[in-house]
Amino acid sequence: MIPIPLPVNVAQCAPAGLSSPLERKQAEELTRLLKAIADPTRLQILSLINAQPDGRACVCDLAEAISVSQPTISHHLKTLTSVGLLEREKRGTWAWYSINQQQWQSLADVVS
Amino acid sequence: MIPIPLPVNVAQCAPAGLSSPLERKQAEELTRLLKAIADPTRLQILSLINAQPDGRACVCDLAEAISVSQPTISHHLKTLTSVGLLEREKRGTWAWYSINQQQWQSLADVVS
Repeated sequence: MIPIPLPVNVAQCAPAGLSSPLERKQAEELTRLLKAIADPTRLQILSLINAQPDGRACVCDLAEAISVSQPTISHHLKTLTSVGLLEREKRGTWAWYSINQQQWQSLADVVS
Repeated sequence: MIPIPLPVNVAQCAPAGLSSPLERKQAEELTRLLKAIADPTRLQILSLINAQPDGRACVCDLAEAISVSQPTISHHLKTLTSVGLLEREKRGTWAWYSINQQQWQSLADVVS
């Protein structure tokens, strides 16, 4: 392979090759979170929960707001909870969900 | 259906991202981008490109830095380019890639 000369500012500011890559393990952990939110219904669920004044929503309201069945919503909530993006709290008959801000922040750090 | 009430500031200001309920179409478009980056090798590629002083990297350097074959890197670059997250520029023998800031911003808006 014939090496292509780097642009001048690259040659000056960095050694040959690339700097500060994401470690493989870190990339795999982030992939787990990204796959969990890479679904339109789950994005809608997260946006609805986030839009609540107290940051939490009942599974019953979510099903109605997104117009899908409650078992479907429950399945998606389970996926988001399993990767730690949602926290679940039982209040009487219904479960309420809120976003785990720490996990969310780790996603925000990637794309900000 | 009982609508989930929006907090006052969301209703008034309509901020970007998950602070307001996502429409289905918008959620589907974001899903397309999220699926494209939900892969450890592609996350490493993006972090490497982003770490360059001039924000662009050659396919040859990426393959060496991540220690995968050039055809594999090319496949992942094609995926990222096809959703508009990367821009491709041919310089002599090699292709150079940079991040499309506008597309990236639409992801950042979701998780910020």
